[in-house]
Amino acid sequence: MDFSTWMQSIQQRTEQTLDHLLPAPHLAPQRLHQAMRYAVLGGGKRVRPLLCHAAGLITGASSEHLDIAASAVELIHVYSLVHDDLPCMDDDILRRGKPTCHVEFDEATAMLVGDALQTLAFQTLAEHTLCEPCNDDQRNAQAQEPLEKSAAARQLNMVSLLAHASGSRGMAGGQAIDLAAIDQALTLSELEFMHIHKTGALIRAAVLLGAHCGSNLSSEAIRHLDHYAKIAGLLFQVVDDILDSEADTATLGKTAGKDAAQNKPTYVTLLGLPQAREKAAELHTSARAALADFGTSAQRLIELTDFIGHRKF
Amino acid sequence: MDFSTWMQSIQQRTEQTLDHLLPAPHLAPQRLHQAMRYAVLGGGKRVRPLLCHAAGLITGASSEHLDIAASAVELIHVYSLVHDDLPCMDDDILRRGKPTCHVEFDEATAMLVGDALQTLAFQTLAEHTLCEPCNDDQRNAQAQEPLEKSAAARQLNMVSLLAHASGSRGMAGGQAIDLAAIDQALTLSELEFMHIHKTGALIRAAVLLGAHCGSNLSSEAIRHLDHYAKIAGLLFQVVDDILDSEADTATLGKTAGKDAAQNKPTYVTLLGLPQAREKAAELHTSARAALADFGTSAQRLIELTDFIGHRKF
Repeated sequence: MDFSTWMQSIQQRTEQTLDHLLPAPHLAPQRLHQAMRYAVLGGGKRVRPLLCHAAGLITGASSEHLDIAASAVELIHVYSLVHDDLPCMDDDILRRGKPTCHVEFDEATAMLVGDALQTLAFQTLAEHTLCEPCNDDQRNAQAQEPLEKSAAARQLNMVSLLAHASGSRGMAGGQAIDLAAIDQALTLSELEFMHIHKTGALIRAAVLLGAHCGSNLSSEAIRHLDHYAKIAGLLFQVVDDILDSEADTATLGKTAGKDAAQNKPTYVTLLGLPQAREKAAELHTSARAALADFGTSAQRLIELTDFIGHRKF
Repeated sequence: MDFSTWMQSIQQRTEQTLDHLLPAPHLAPQRLHQAMRYAVLGGGKRVRPLLCHAAGLITGASSEHLDIAASAVELIHVYSLVHDDLPCMDDDILRRGKPTCHVEFDEATAMLVGDALQTLAFQTLAEHTLCEPCNDDQRNAQAQEPLEKSAAARQLNMVSLLAHASGSRGMAGGQAIDLAAIDQALTLSELEFMHIHKTGALIRAAVLLGAHCGSNLSSEAIRHLDHYAKIAGLLFQVVDDILDSEADTATLGKTAGKDAAQNKPTYVTLLGLPQAREKAAELHTSARAALADFGTSAQRLIELTDFIGHRKF
């Protein structure tokens, strides 16, 4: 299967899983459920689910388990977009080529949509099987190695991992730093600190959750993968800033030039366009290099890194 | 220990646990962490933590485990208050005797505070020990009884229980129904449906999570406890409506008469004050009756029910 076909198949699986996880539109409260479905379904590049699936291939995770983990991460991502678009935050009217949730519905509904999507993410991780049962029942009392954690214990760790990535010291914290940065002159390292939280934390969670759905990796391999994910998150953001500075609204499916208009620092405003492009190329190379030890099992993740580095929308 | 001393001790334990769980105010992003602490600490009756601890006494749960479960429920409750007070929702300026979070800080920060408190609730449930390890290692293969679930599996169930109670088919859904009810003539059963979601779901979760921290109850006992919790939730709400209609703002610590001013249906506007009082008395009796089978182990829960039925603030 070529990369583009694989990507489409994951995007379709993600759409189907999200459709299945979201409450049906006829269930009460209907308007809330319709708005949740409006915000989540039928749009988005599904970058985080793609990263989750690609990382899961390294550890031989099953596609069904990855669907669940990938959807939980995407639900967190969409909740953050819905809240971020509200008038008290970025006040945006266009997202994924459609009116934003509060424009299509109303502000109060959009706030509840974000709240309920976050809850659904954790409910999803807690309620579905995420990894193969380990041989908990066949423990050998004589074994010198530490016992493998039970599937439930591993799953609890995954809930905790997603919570860390989403909370005040992860994504939500990044948004707070972003808010405080309006009209401020940030240094490059301050900008990077913001992005490592705002978008980076959830991208790292997507990669690590995918890997955790499969067989155990050594802690060294986990460190490599985490290092990769951190670079990939920054790469994604630098490319986002470049696209935002040069693309038009129709291509992006969201309001272009927004950051500059709001006087928010970006890699492009800080470095200039040519150097931002250079930075993206460097990050691209480093991200690929971080995957070297995984050999062919990381093929999809490498292809996905190339896609993130070269994307036009 | 008399009830009032017990209540104060639980309120103090809860305050200490929340203080410990919340990120320190000097950690970045500082303003967000300060606002989270402002919203959570130093106020509130802590009714849900009290219910959680009182229910835990029925199953012999340890106070340390109950502190964690109780705090997770309280974090969800406070997040919902912070979001509910925002201008796009109830637009309230006073809560627990202090300016609401968005008045003291700003709207965007208050939204992120609610978001991050919800995340912290699930992180708390996933990261801390909530129940005694079961005898997983001493399983008797000959036993005919189903194997007891591992502590981690029980804990995952508790994450799921809290998520159900908080999400679009629980508390957040109740808020959506509440929004839709403004200026609407609701029937008593529609009003009850709204409250069963808006406040009832989380109160039930508080009771059940407390019980789940201890030894296993029979499914019949769980049903009794759930029935109790459902009635107690309604009792809490009817009394809330009565207090809202007759108390003053200083006593309540939040804006009095708000529901009537916003043309929101309440038990008092629907039934009139004397019948609302009668309804409260009936619910109070039923709630006590639902605890009959638990004998003296439910003593604190009975006392707490009396407190909820007779409270003046």
